[in-house]
Amino acid sequence: MKVLNVVGQRVPMHDAAAKITGQAQFTDDLVLPGMLFGKLVRSTIPHGRIVSIDVSKAKALPGVKGVITGKDIPDRVYGIVPKAKDEHALARDKVRYIGDEVAAVVAVSQEIAEEAVRLVEVEYEALPAVFDPLEAIQEGAPLVHENLATNASASIHKEFGDVAKGFAESDFVFEDSFYSQAVNHAPMEPHAALASYDALNGDLTIWSSTQIPYFLKRNLATTLLVPENKVRVIKPKVGGGFGQKIDMFAKDFCACWFAKELGRPVKFLYDREEAFQNTRQRHPMYLTVKTGVNKEGKILAQKITAHADGGAYNSTAPLMITLSCFFIMIPYRIENLLYEGYHVYTNKPVGGAMRGHGIPQARFAIERQIDLIAQRIGVDAVDMRVKNAIHAHEPHPAGFIINTCGFAESVTEAAKAIGWAEKRGKLPFGRGVGLAGASFPSGVANMAHLASGAVVQLSREGRVNILSGAADIGQGAETVICQMVAEQLGVPMEDVHITAADTGTCPLDAGTFGSGVTVRAGNAALLAANDVRKELFGFVADRLECAVEDLTAANRRIWVKGSPDRGLSLSDALHGYQYSDKPLPIVGRGGWIPPAEQPTSLLTKNGNFSPNYSFMTQAAEVEVDTETGKVTVLKMVTAHDCGQPINPMLVEGQLEGSILGGMGQALYEDSTCIDGQQHNPSFCDYGFPTMMEMPEMEGLHVDTDDPEGPFGAKEAGEGTQLAPAPAIVNAIADAIGVEFDRLPVTPAMVLEALRKKKG
Amino acid sequence: MKVLNVVGQRVPMHDAAAKITGQAQFTDDLVLPGMLFGKLVRSTIPHGRIVSIDVSKAKALPGVKGVITGKDIPDRVYGIVPKAKDEHALARDKVRYIGDEVAAVVAVSQEIAEEAVRLVEVEYEALPAVFDPLEAIQEGAPLVHENLATNASASIHKEFGDVAKGFAESDFVFEDSFYSQAVNHAPMEPHAALASYDALNGDLTIWSSTQIPYFLKRNLATTLLVPENKVRVIKPKVGGGFGQKIDMFAKDFCACWFAKELGRPVKFLYDREEAFQNTRQRHPMYLTVKTGVNKEGKILAQKITAHADGGAYNSTAPLMITLSCFFIMIPYRIENLLYEGYHVYTNKPVGGAMRGHGIPQARFAIERQIDLIAQRIGVDAVDMRVKNAIHAHEPHPAGFIINTCGFAESVTEAAKAIGWAEKRGKLPFGRGVGLAGASFPSGVANMAHLASGAVVQLSREGRVNILSGAADIGQGAETVICQMVAEQLGVPMEDVHITAADTGTCPLDAGTFGSGVTVRAGNAALLAANDVRKELFGFVADRLECAVEDLTAANRRIWVKGSPDRGLSLSDALHGYQYSDKPLPIVGRGGWIPPAEQPTSLLTKNGNFSPNYSFMTQAAEVEVDTETGKVTVLKMVTAHDCGQPINPMLVEGQLEGSILGGMGQALYEDSTCIDGQQHNPSFCDYGFPTMMEMPEMEGLHVDTDDPEGPFGAKEAGEGTQLAPAPAIVNAIADAIGVEFDRLPVTPAMVLEALRKKKG
Repeated sequence: MKVLNVVGQRVPMHDAAAKITGQAQFTDDLVLPGMLFGKLVRSTIPHGRIVSIDVSKAKALPGVKGVITGKDIPDRVYGIVPKAKDEHALARDKVRYIGDEVAAVVAVSQEIAEEAVRLVEVEYEALPAVFDPLEAIQEGAPLVHENLATNASASIHKEFGDVAKGFAESDFVFEDSFYSQAVNHAPMEPHAALASYDALNGDLTIWSSTQIPYFLKRNLATTLLVPENKVRVIKPKVGGGFGQKIDMFAKDFCACWFAKELGRPVKFLYDREEAFQNTRQRHPMYLTVKTGVNKEGKILAQKITAHADGGAYNSTAPLMITLSCFFIMIPYRIENLLYEGYHVYTNKPVGGAMRGHGIPQARFAIERQIDLIAQRIGVDAVDMRVKNAIHAHEPHPAGFIINTCGFAESVTEAAKAIGWAEKRGKLPFGRGVGLAGASFPSGVANMAHLASGAVVQLSREGRVNILSGAADIGQGAETVICQMVAEQLGVPMEDVHITAADTGTCPLDAGTFGSGVTVRAGNAALLAANDVRKELFGFVADRLECAVEDLTAANRRIWVKGSPDRGLSLSDALHGYQYSDKPLPIVGRGGWIPPAEQPTSLLTKNGNFSPNYSFMTQAAEVEVDTETGKVTVLKMVTAHDCGQPINPMLVEGQLEGSILGGMGQALYEDSTCIDGQQHNPSFCDYGFPTMMEMPEMEGLHVDTDDPEGPFGAKEAGEGTQLAPAPAIVNAIADAIGVEFDRLPVTPAMVLEALRKKKG
Repeated sequence: MKVLNVVGQRVPMHDAAAKITGQAQFTDDLVLPGMLFGKLVRSTIPHGRIVSIDVSKAKALPGVKGVITGKDIPDRVYGIVPKAKDEHALARDKVRYIGDEVAAVVAVSQEIAEEAVRLVEVEYEALPAVFDPLEAIQEGAPLVHENLATNASASIHKEFGDVAKGFAESDFVFEDSFYSQAVNHAPMEPHAALASYDALNGDLTIWSSTQIPYFLKRNLATTLLVPENKVRVIKPKVGGGFGQKIDMFAKDFCACWFAKELGRPVKFLYDREEAFQNTRQRHPMYLTVKTGVNKEGKILAQKITAHADGGAYNSTAPLMITLSCFFIMIPYRIENLLYEGYHVYTNKPVGGAMRGHGIPQARFAIERQIDLIAQRIGVDAVDMRVKNAIHAHEPHPAGFIINTCGFAESVTEAAKAIGWAEKRGKLPFGRGVGLAGASFPSGVANMAHLASGAVVQLSREGRVNILSGAADIGQGAETVICQMVAEQLGVPMEDVHITAADTGTCPLDAGTFGSGVTVRAGNAALLAANDVRKELFGFVADRLECAVEDLTAANRRIWVKGSPDRGLSLSDALHGYQYSDKPLPIVGRGGWIPPAEQPTSLLTKNGNFSPNYSFMTQAAEVEVDTETGKVTVLKMVTAHDCGQPINPMLVEGQLEGSILGGMGQALYEDSTCIDGQQHNPSFCDYGFPTMMEMPEMEGLHVDTDDPEGPFGAKEAGEGTQLAPAPAIVNAIADAIGVEFDRLPVTPAMVLEALRKKKG
């Protein structure tokens, strides 16, 4: 693992103190002169036609400045995937789930806005509703979007290799079914937007808790019918997203709409219930996995059928169901794969991107089945994984280019660290170990030829100001970018400052999703830093009478490699540069586009999906309390190939968060509905694991140095979220001999299974 | 006059609507989480030793978070000119004028801070005070700064040519004395600062109503003892400065100090009295002008002695007294000049930069004396001015390089427009015409090798984002920069957006003073725009199979000059550029440094002071009410060579503001003190001219196209402030035959003079 002057160091997040002391400004902390407050009126029924909306009482309330319904705004839909846009900011004719936005009010205070919401009278004609995707795809099921012939709004049917031949050549073929539940991202910061409008210029500015300023800008332009170049999106501090803040929401549209109509700034803030119920959740998914293997456990063919419960709208539907398919192709060599995936509408809260985005569900099914198959055919589950592991530079059925891959090593390392040889099948009843593998891309594809850009300015006093498009949502993207620039310019971290994710000042970035930020925005920042370096080093080389290539820099000093005394302080270099009448700051620019062999539309083409791919194996040791059914995760080992960590502490943070998320998926969280009504939309009721439930954690770094990653880095944010749940459930099977096929594994389920087993 | 697609057009200020609707954010509009409010304790006596300060009662007041005195902060002085720094944020031992800062408090509300100020008990030992600069330079006068041997804190003694020889060769030598009063800038927005501090990084951020973020940054770093690269200065909207916001003030220091100490954001806002009394004012100045002329009125030698009343501190003292000297050398050819200037401390409010900065006082004296001499030797005052006018490309005694000069033409044009031939000396008693000439630099010198920089980004949707260091304080600098970039990129104004004067995101600029912004920051922006243009046009030229030089652009279209059909829309060009996998936005950069022949220290060297020079003549027609003594300005003509106006409407705005300012100086404003106490520090009492007093105004553009100015522009903000006062007083002389030598000419003075004349 590279440990350089700044890169590779355990540097605290650059905005840690501001966040801890409350000085950091999240969207709701922003105050503008004359600001108004908005609130949404939401559907109280899961499915129905809007008969009438009476806003007269709300409008008459003193302090109310405006009330709008779906009829007042353009008939334009928004969404992440252009062809799958299906959501109006405010419902026009129909409501499709409890909480669907029906009207919006704006007032001089939050309290008056809330009172006005209660005064809006909506009459509905209830329609039959459907709450399960398998029912929803039946003939005759109520149609959530009646303009479509089916509730299956997005589907993928994709074959790689020859699956029939693969199955025919298999010694064994197994088919198993699984279910993964709805879980919620539940970021600490709820969703908010603040908009202002300049009537003279037609300039619209929105501050929004968004992960993707670029998407928000486009969706606002097309729904508000304003030119895209008149929309500026500024991302303030964002208190977590995990995929939930990828989408545009009604709050964004309505804040802008009212700001434009009223000529005053308007803020919308979702309360915690709204954040839970009316944003996004992880898609509940039914999966059937049919796998053909030979006697040694080599996978010869696999067929997977997936039905994702999308709730009332598409959000990322086609993307999610596609990702779920393509990332079955790593970390195992599956030459013959048939995948059928369906995104199905129901009258429930909306599924969307969430850490792993369609893949944790599939990973749960596949990694569970590997354990089942290993047991059935009598091979070791670790051996089977190693046997099927892909390796760097292999030809890949989907066209991925895997330059570095530490997967096989991660399996053996994780197994060793959890004590596989000594413990698997050998611990007392109630204790067990299990593991699971995973892989993740570092950003997906060359999306619509979007570049990531950076501008790096080195000022006369040695301050480095970075402008980046990267949207830090708490994961530390800005810190990591600062580290790379600091390293390259030979300055300490404290000299580097960053402004990011403001479409009015910063270059473009595709946004925070798919774990692409470190590689994509990092490469851009590195290019910009190199541009500055080139200019300054050229000047210094003249002064020192050496070749530019011979120079190196660290700790605010530039010198000839190998001759530490032959150098200049950065301060002297800048002073000399300036007094030779060259303009300061030195402005460097960098633009980075994923390698050209990547497909520009991952929905229609195969190809190399990502600049590089992370690999990991996670191993759990659990204890099951046979009296209460409670499962305790005692230890979680992660053997992780994320390339070269730019900041090991932040990688650990991601790892720990992933383990928490995976434990939630495995054992705790369940955000499903009863008759369309989510039953636990609060931090109190939802029941996350907390710090108290965290196990002993061990992180093992499998060292690779990726040629496409800046300083050799790969993603570290999402891959580790994929394997903890199957690893835990595999360990439970080892502990009590029960093979759970649906999540979460609750104490009640454990007790019931133990009862059955006994009886 | 060039009228291009955007440049030369009457474009409204880009932030006009935001300001009119109240959405624009000035410093006091900013709100940060947990913000505290500060207030200063000020001296109640003009001169005295601080015996004791008891802050205990103030500290004990609930809600007070901190109280500091001069003993609590580093013993560091600040100021504009490094060698003349003399001001502590809080007085250490002595107070030097009424209002001198003695202590600062900070509390959870503005009201509590004000109450706490009243609870601070200061005991003084009063010292003899001095209120007049001519007394203050006498032997034995009380010393305002006892560490100096004299109150004359800055002086200049400069001779060009051979003055003795000039006088010897003269046919006539005249000596006359004049006095120009204290006037106040009185910007609409009072002075404010908001600071926050990040304890982890040591990052200090200040939002301040400043004209020069760069100076503020430096002064904060050296007085707070923090590294300069840890200070970020952001200039929000500024509601006027006129030179008064060039300096750092106690509010800036104290906001930062408390933010750093308390870890919470702190705001200081001056009330109107503080803005009047405790910031800066135009230096009252005594001037004696001795001029030798030949019989035709050609000036052969001139000796000027000036004593400026600096008040308690230096502020810009050495610079002001130097500028006052050098700009006597334009617009007239004065080959033999002796100048003796003294900046003198008194126990009064502090003099500082103000529109014209030391020159209006000198201009008043010189232009008055020209009229007096013309009368005495029997030549026409217009002829005398034309005869002595400098011309382009003349060798210049101080080394100025005058590439373009419309002065002589401005004199004749202004005279013609006011009806000189028909009216001068020929109107009925009580009516008269007069004129005066002036000139001003477009920014001063290559100060410390400071470059102006700009970054221009052209995004995929055709949005242009400019980053500039230019500090718009209401004059329209940002608008003018946007126009130049829009013109150069061939887009309408509405596509261009600017972020400026934030040392954390924008390149450096020297700041708003000396009328340098349009030329300096404009040239930088133009270079950056050309950098973008070069990149995009290169791509388009390939597509169109033509040479880059053959391309032109306007209205979002790029085409081959002369073949309008052979072109591409900007949108198509950007799309093609992007899909050829080049990174967007295109980032252009520009850095501009004044021409190399300029001196880098204007205090010690002669040389070409400015990239270029504006010239103007202003002519007034007045009516004097002989019953009341009231002078009414009926008409003011300005014949103006500001090169090519980028935005004629903004030039007119500057012109109108200058006339108002000049009328104030001539007839209305007087900010002098009684025993050190300013007697009219409010908008109500100060007595500006208002819209009701504005005369008929005629602007005549004398066309020049300056090679150093962007699009041929020169300054248009300060030069026109210089001549209105002498023109008005010259017209009064023509009207009633009274030669006033001190300002303002009040009704009482007029009546007294008429009485004397009669009697």
